[in-house]
Amino acid sequence: MTFDSNILSNFSTTNKRLIARIISTVESGNEISIQILKLLYSKTGNAFRIGITGPPGAGKSTITNQITKHFLSLGKSVAIIAVDPTSPFSGGALLGDRVRMNDIGMLDNVYIRSVATRGSLGGLSQKAIDIADVLDAAGFDYIIFETVGVGQSELDIAKIAHTTIVTLVPESGDAIQAMKAGLMEIADLFVINKCDRPEASKAFSSLQSSLQLRNFSSSDWQPPIIKTSAISNIGITELVKSIFEHRKYCSNNPNCLKNRIEYTKERIITIISELVKKEMFTNNLVVTNETIEEVISGNLSPYILAEQILSNYKSNFINNDNSNNSLH
Amino acid sequence: MTFDSNILSNFSTTNKRLIARIISTVESGNEISIQILKLLYSKTGNAFRIGITGPPGAGKSTITNQITKHFLSLGKSVAIIAVDPTSPFSGGALLGDRVRMNDIGMLDNVYIRSVATRGSLGGLSQKAIDIADVLDAAGFDYIIFETVGVGQSELDIAKIAHTTIVTLVPESGDAIQAMKAGLMEIADLFVINKCDRPEASKAFSSLQSSLQLRNFSSSDWQPPIIKTSAISNIGITELVKSIFEHRKYCSNNPNCLKNRIEYTKERIITIISELVKKEMFTNNLVVTNETIEEVISGNLSPYILAEQILSNYKSNFINNDNSNNSLH
Repeated sequence: MTFDSNILSNFSTTNKRLIARIISTVESGNEISIQILKLLYSKTGNAFRIGITGPPGAGKSTITNQITKHFLSLGKSVAIIAVDPTSPFSGGALLGDRVRMNDIGMLDNVYIRSVATRGSLGGLSQKAIDIADVLDAAGFDYIIFETVGVGQSELDIAKIAHTTIVTLVPESGDAIQAMKAGLMEIADLFVINKCDRPEASKAFSSLQSSLQLRNFSSSDWQPPIIKTSAISNIGITELVKSIFEHRKYCSNNPNCLKNRIEYTKERIITIISELVKKEMFTNNLVVTNETIEEVISGNLSPYILAEQILSNYKSNFINNDNSNNSLH
Repeated sequence: MTFDSNILSNFSTTNKRLIARIISTVESGNEISIQILKLLYSKTGNAFRIGITGPPGAGKSTITNQITKHFLSLGKSVAIIAVDPTSPFSGGALLGDRVRMNDIGMLDNVYIRSVATRGSLGGLSQKAIDIADVLDAAGFDYIIFETVGVGQSELDIAKIAHTTIVTLVPESGDAIQAMKAGLMEIADLFVINKCDRPEASKAFSSLQSSLQLRNFSSSDWQPPIIKTSAISNIGITELVKSIFEHRKYCSNNPNCLKNRIEYTKERIITIISELVKKEMFTNNLVVTNETIEEVISGNLSPYILAEQILSNYKSNFINNDNSNNSLH
């Protein structure tokens, strides 16, 4: 199987049909998808990637909608990747929401894609990051990931984003408590949405005190807290301003680069372990059901079996190597 | 580094200090931890594993609390693994909750552990499953995993459980819509908690209609929907009865065994890819920051780099093999 690389000459933000086709191939995770990703990669590196996360109902989609409109007004193009099962972009919410959101989806400079398939090769976050590479290569200026701030996949995506926005609502008082641990570290900006509600200033002070406990040094980025009412477009200009400030801060900051290197390493290691998995399936280095049943019944440790399979995998490779030196 | 295996002769449900020490070692994911897991494995396979998942605030901890008390009244021992950042067991919620919940934590036949560390070796779910093996080997009759029903880790844990309970609250009408996709497939039992609330019967009918769309065959397990008010202990006896019925159904059902084989295979493949990752770090088959920066700037595809590293890993192994035949 090969892929006609000429197709990519027509690849641009406005050719939505081709984008959709390529993303579907990438989602499938087959051999061609890796060829495409390799081919496209040289065109990436220009898009600015924003992660928006927070609990369901915090208004992440409305904020995404509003900042998208703001970027459009600056003449920029925007791609949205919805990895949130409760997001109207991914079709999870009520019909009214979905209709309201999709008004931007029809515009030329906007592309919306939801990611739900957990393919055999790679988890949800790896797929979302691959899709972002496709959209980056297509030429989008901004890529927004919308995720629910809980699982590992969501944290992985937050790491890969240049700027991560954590969205909370005033009444999520205990939610703030609960999620602080995981979300505090990944937030570059906090948004308290629905700020017209009475509890807003209490939520603001509570979050501010938590942040003060973190003892930032003077050269550290200190995550600002922005109050918005996204549905009325209140606070969006300030939010976009903060995104630009964080972007500028990171453009020449050694800590930001260090983090980016770490996350990229993690991504590469994940790809390697997926490649190993794939080779094992291709070479039928899988075990019989009888052996697996030994594991289920407690007779054979999964760690011992894993080591045996890995050792077989290596022997298999050595045998191939001895019989076929062209591999080197 | 070796581990004094005599220590395991004192290993039992009541030796909580030793359990805690072993779990901490397992959480660290070091070389000893794999030795311990291998050593303990022959003692596993007796505990019945229950997963409880659902949105934050659905009352998962209260249900866990009540079914634990029920099992205790039958003379059984129970271990609880909290992987939910909002669970009072994991210390995520308000103080009042935590105090209320911990009344069972002091009992001899109960062990509560929260899992939060995402170690370098293995994700959150792998850690939780390893910890369950430790508790199984210690001799607990029941192991309850409490998770938030969203991310990939949580779905992995649901798969490894013998019986998975999905908990919803009446007013989570759209939450039901939103989460149906992912949670419908993993639920062996549904609980509508806080059933004294007015929307309860509507939520019940809505869930029932969704289930009817699934066209179960007569031999399939049909997930029952149980209405509870866990805080008042209403519906708990019925819930435990349904758990026992599902356990009995699965004890001689080929589909349950088939699923269990699939999940165990997935677990082994995950362990293998973690072993490969670990070997790569040990053998310094990692790349320079300069190479990673090439990836960040879009000049080098992460897929191409991953293939190069994997190929180096194999050559390295072949070289070792040629110079040291004792490896075979």
